[in-house]
Order: sequence, then structure tokens, then C-alpha cells
Amino acid sequence: MDFPDYYRSTFTPAEEIEKRLAAFQARLAEEALEAALLHQLVDLYYFSGTAQQGFLYVPARGEAILLIKKEYERAREESPLARVEPLPSLAGLGVRLRELDCRVPVRLGLELDVLPTGLFRFLQKILKFEEGRDLWPLIRSLRETKSEYEMGLLRKAGEIGAEVYREVADFIRPGLSEIEVAGWMNYLAMRRGHQNILRSRGFNSEIYNWHVVSGALGTLPSSIDAPFNGLGLSPAFPLGAGLKPILAGEPVLIDFGTCYTGYQVDQTRMYSIGKPGAEFLEAYAALEEIEADIIRNLHPGVPAESLYPLALARGRELGFEKVFLGPPERKIRYVGHGVGLESPETPFLAPGHTYPLRAGMTLALELKIVLPGGAVGFENTVAITEKGVVKLTTADEGFFVL
Amino acid sequence: MDFPDYYRSTFTPAEEIEKRLAAFQARLAEEALEAALLHQLVDLYYFSGTAQQGFLYVPARGEAILLIKKEYERAREESPLARVEPLPSLAGLGVRLRELDCRVPVRLGLELDVLPTGLFRFLQKILKFEEGRDLWPLIRSLRETKSEYEMGLLRKAGEIGAEVYREVADFIRPGLSEIEVAGWMNYLAMRRGHQNILRSRGFNSEIYNWHVVSGALGTLPSSIDAPFNGLGLSPAFPLGAGLKPILAGEPVLIDFGTCYTGYQVDQTRMYSIGKPGAEFLEAYAALEEIEADIIRNLHPGVPAESLYPLALARGRELGFEKVFLGPPERKIRYVGHGVGLESPETPFLAPGHTYPLRAGMTLALELKIVLPGGAVGFENTVAITEKGVVKLTTADEGFFVL
Repeated sequence: MDFPDYYRSTFTPAEEIEKRLAAFQARLAEEALEAALLHQLVDLYYFSGTAQQGFLYVPARGEAILLIKKEYERAREESPLARVEPLPSLAGLGVRLRELDCRVPVRLGLELDVLPTGLFRFLQKILKFEEGRDLWPLIRSLRETKSEYEMGLLRKAGEIGAEVYREVADFIRPGLSEIEVAGWMNYLAMRRGHQNILRSRGFNSEIYNWHVVSGALGTLPSSIDAPFNGLGLSPAFPLGAGLKPILAGEPVLIDFGTCYTGYQVDQTRMYSIGKPGAEFLEAYAALEEIEADIIRNLHPGVPAESLYPLALARGRELGFEKVFLGPPERKIRYVGHGVGLESPETPFLAPGHTYPLRAGMTLALELKIVLPGGAVGFENTVAITEKGVVKLTTADEGFFVL
Repeated sequence: MDFPDYYRSTFTPAEEIEKRLAAFQARLAEEALEAALLHQLVDLYYFSGTAQQGFLYVPARGEAILLIKKEYERAREESPLARVEPLPSLAGLGVRLRELDCRVPVRLGLELDVLPTGLFRFLQKILKFEEGRDLWPLIRSLRETKSEYEMGLLRKAGEIGAEVYREVADFIRPGLSEIEVAGWMNYLAMRRGHQNILRSRGFNSEIYNWHVVSGALGTLPSSIDAPFNGLGLSPAFPLGAGLKPILAGEPVLIDFGTCYTGYQVDQTRMYSIGKPGAEFLEAYAALEEIEADIIRNLHPGVPAESLYPLALARGRELGFEKVFLGPPERKIRYVGHGVGLESPETPFLAPGHTYPLRAGMTLALELKIVLPGGAVGFENTVAITEKGVVKLTTADEGFFVL
């Protein structure tokens, strides 16, 4: 196909895919799983380099085969895999796997965390495996640490974010609605190649980046596990930016995710039109200190959960115990979560997450304080490396008084 | 809660919810299902008026109860249901249902088309039902015909679209990338209250509205069941607008969905900077004639599938047999699909869809012709009524030469 160079430049290198598949196969063998059949688009993209619809058959030993439901030729160009085959129909998947000598074992690895029940039953009927084993814990742990290549894409997403945050400062003015500011940021991001589809894995989990919330209304809670979610436009999507006009002196919290070639970063910055109340500036300064403290302690080997009490202690010291991470009745219990092809991912900087942090992990440090007159946030996406923490989100920091 | 009037004005009226639930309960009784447990956000919104996360227990006889996982108080305000209760934890769902005298029958109705396998297994374990029965065919048929209230929301979505299409004409200029034009439309739509989350029910089905594709590259096929999908930004999302600059004389196809309070419409218009080749204008004129023909025959009682051969015959008469609905090797086999809270919905104007059309159905008539130099499209969302077809998308029609 006649792809332009700027499109080809986004293809995943063959060595990346080889390494990812080799690690996956090693883990399948460890788990005594003879084969896996992947179907979810993000997993297909991660292990094959293309998000064309289909199935990726991965044996514990031997060659992976990508079966493509519709545009087989496009998939063959986008994926560096040696074996990409057409799949004429879903009902013919069993026949096709047999033709290609892909053995379906008694216990088949599948993405049971997302695969709909109806589809699972259909696959079981046509492929005749006895048991489906959930692959998500395994895939999740592989995707947790990012390669240099992936870091590059996350860095690029962060650069788009930095430019958008810089430019939106010139746009915000009294009386504009939150949703208009959010739409403007979408425009600024998309013209720079921001992939407007953000992805979240969970069922019913709808990720969005137009989280521009202002004043007291911005502190309204809703369905997402955050101390506040904003008003939203209607009960059909009761989250994020709404029609509320932004007024002078109100804190305006902008939590706007950006995404480049599948990889997304999270970031939050604060604005106000004219000076806000001193309490908002103090809260913001506290969050900067708490983030600095977390970053100082974010080393390979440190238990993920240990950052949570550390942040709480610092919040207490700074006088924000009651409002840090939300008001007492709806405090969230994490100060950071993994981010990459989906959000959230592991690790979580949260109680119970006893596993050690590793170099290559990428985390959104989500720090929030909720005051009666508005929410205050500060968030960066960072990478843990052997040489220290690197910020992937490079938007200027500060509480911007416009 | 202190919701502003513009937010409250988007609440679903109590009579709407009562009618929907009564129809649902009648169908449950017909299917000899004692109770249903809904979990998917769109279904929750349709039957309860709020998209707060939770479960809606609907017995065939008796009162529906909405159990809310997190913001119970917000749900209670947004939903007109008399019984809205907190659900402290998913694991406690069984206990909670017993406390509220909600009997879990042996055969429980569930959304098996979307409910993940892992979650189904967990629910089966804690609720101890024997069999899960898929509710989607039943829910789909209820959602197929829209009330006057729903038509009003769709009309509003169409009005947002009309304004966006009018204004984007002033923005398109040579050298702008497809994605920049798409981003601008997103801005224009969001500032008018467009709900930027569009919804598609299918697993792996990612709906997006930045389908701005131009010239020959715009005809690239990809994973969606359409005759062309465009280049996209990368293999991570290989669809829709990309970084390709729009050049003078090229056909620019803009298929931009808009959404208001959960209800979305589809529409497509054509643009070019300076005069395009005559073949594109002729193709567009043919699509307008085909649409007029479909609309003349879109009556309650007519079999849905009958519109498909009718459109094909008209395309043949007009000399576009080979390229109408795509080139021979990738022709799509539908000329319209239902649209509403999700897209696509039933009905489909496609072979095999033998059921009769009914008043209240809303359809996107998706008409496309693919020529070597570019794709041409014309699309409106229409409502079938007893008094004839009404266009819900009111953007000016024509091939706009800028």
C-alpha cells in the first residue's frame, strides 16, 4: 500500500515486537499454557504492531500468527510479523486455525477480563477448548515496564501536551464555558497529531480528556474513582467539562490527557483568571512539594504502596490532611497509577500494592486537594529509570494566574 | 446537589423512564424471565436516566431498583426512579440484593453481548444463578423506536452538526491537515454542547467522529465495515483523519457524528478547495438521487432489507454500479443503520433484515461511492414517522466548492 512516510514512521520496529512476543511466550511456558488467542485491539497492537481487527494466535513455542478479519493486506504492511493471514469469517476461525496448524489446547489463554461472555461462549463452541484462562495478569505485567521506544512515544505525547497547555493560556477568558476551553485544547492537540482515542481497559470505563473543571461546581463527585469528577454535560456523561462559564478568581483545573501513536500521558495544571484565593495557591504549592517528595523516593525496588503513606504524611505536615486526595468522606486511596497504551495500568501507588517498582515503569502521579471553592490538582507522568525519575510531561509547572 | 438549571434541563422525564421500564418488564414476562440485572452504562442511562456506575435490578413484576457503586446521591437526583440505593462493594452485591428483597432467579437476564467473561463468572459465583440469558436482542428491539423526547435530543444533535458544517467551510484551506480540520470541528461542536463521547456497543468497536478524509489516500481501507476508512494517524488507530494535507481540487469527505445528551446522529458532507473533477460532482449528485429514492420508500411496514436492492438498482441506473458502496472487492452490504444512544443500532437496511420498518425508527443512510481519486459520500440521519420521513440532520446539502 502507498503509505506516506509520516505514516510509515509510526510503525512499531520489528525488534520491539520480537522482544514483546518472546517475553510473552516465556511467561506462557511458565504458566503451563500451550497457547494464547488475543483479540482485544490494544493487545493486538502491542504484540503485532497493528490494531486491525482479528486474532493473534501465540503458542508457547513456535511462531505467532496474526489472523485478520478484514484488511489483511494493510495489516501485513503495518505489522512486522512474518505470518499474517486472512480470516474470512469469525465462524471459520476454528477451521482456519487447523489449516494453519495452530493447535488449540485444552486450556486456552484468553483476555477474559474484557472478552464478552457471548463471544467467549461462541469461541468455546467453535474451538472446542475445555477451559479459558485469563491472560490479563500476565499481559499487564509485561506491559508494565516500557522500552526505550515506548518511552519515546510517551515523551512525544508529553510534548504535545506541553504545547497545548502553553497555548490554552492565551485562550481562557471570563465567561467561556469549561467545554469550550476543553474543545479548544482538543483542537490544539489534534492539529499536532494527538490521537483523540484514549483507551481504558475496564468494562464501562470511558476515558476522556476534557476534564476542565472550575470553581465549586468543579468539585462535584461522580462515577470515576477520583475525589471529584466535575459536572459534565448531562446525566448521559456526567463527568468533566460542562457548560459552566469560567469566572474570574475561580480555580480552573485542567486534567487533559494526550496520546501519540497509541501511548497516552496524563497531566494536570491549574489556571485562574485574576488572582484566586490564597488557599488555592497554598494548596497547589503543597502538591508540588508532595510530588517532589514522591519523586525523590521513586526508585526501582521500592514497594509501590510505600509512596502512599509517604504522600499522606507530607500532606499532613503541610496542613492539608483533611482535604488532600479529597474530603474525608470521599478520599481516594492512591497517589499514582501506571499509564501507557491504556489508563490506568499497573503499578498503583496504593495500599496493598506490595510489589516493588521497576525501572521502565511509567506513572501518572495524581495529586489533588479539594477545597469548598474548587479543586486543586497537580499531575505529571513520570518514568522510573536506573538513573532516576524522568518527567515525560513537560508542560510548564505552576498555578497560572492569567 | 446544587445542579445548575442547564444541567437539570437534560434530565430524562419520569414518564419516559416509566414507559421504557414498563415495556421492558412486559418483554421479560413474555420471555419468561423473572428478572434482569443491567450493568452497561448506556443501558443504565436508558432505563434509569443516569449513567452513574452500578446495577439496575428489574423484576418482570414489581419495582426496579438502582444500586449505585459510588455516587449514590448524585444518581438519586439524576434518576427519576423511586428506588435508588447505595452498593458499598461489588462483592457485596448478592447480600445487598437479598437485603432489598430482590430475588435472583435461576435464569437471570444479563447483557451477555458486552459483559466480560470474568465479570460474568464472578456474578454467577456471588449471585448463584444457574443460567445467564442474553438480554441484548430484547433491549435492542425496545431501543429501536424512539419517543418524541428522544427525537428532540437527536434533532438537537443534528442542529449542532448543521452549525459545525456551516462554519467549517470558512476554515478549510489548502495545506491544512485532515486532522486539523477534524480538530477544529470538534472545537466547534464541543462549544455547542456536543458530548464528545460517542458510543458503539460492540467489543473492539471504537467509534470516532474525526472522519475527514481527502483525495486518493482517503480511500484506504481499514478495519471498519465501510468501503474506505482513511489513513488515520498510526497503526495504533488506523482510521479517519490523518496528517495528510488537503490539496486544491481533491474531494474532502467529512463524516462527523454529533451527540447531544447521549443521542448521536451521523452525517456526511463533501467539500473541495476549488473545483474537483466532474466525476466527483456527478457521483455526489447520484448519491443525492439514491437517498431521495430511499426516503420515498421508507414507510412503516416496509421490510428493512427491501431498501438495499432498491438503492443498488438506482445506483446501476445512474451508471455507478461498480463503485457504489465501494469497489467490487470491498463493497459493503448495507445502505443504512439505526442510530441513537449507540451506533450502529438496528434496523439495518441490508440483506437478511426481513423485519418491517416502524414509525419511530431512526436511521443513518450511509451512501458512498469510491473513485480512484477519492471517496464521495452523502449521509443523513432520518426518522420514520407516520407522516413521512423527517431529516434529523439539517446541515445544508450539496458538494461545497470553496
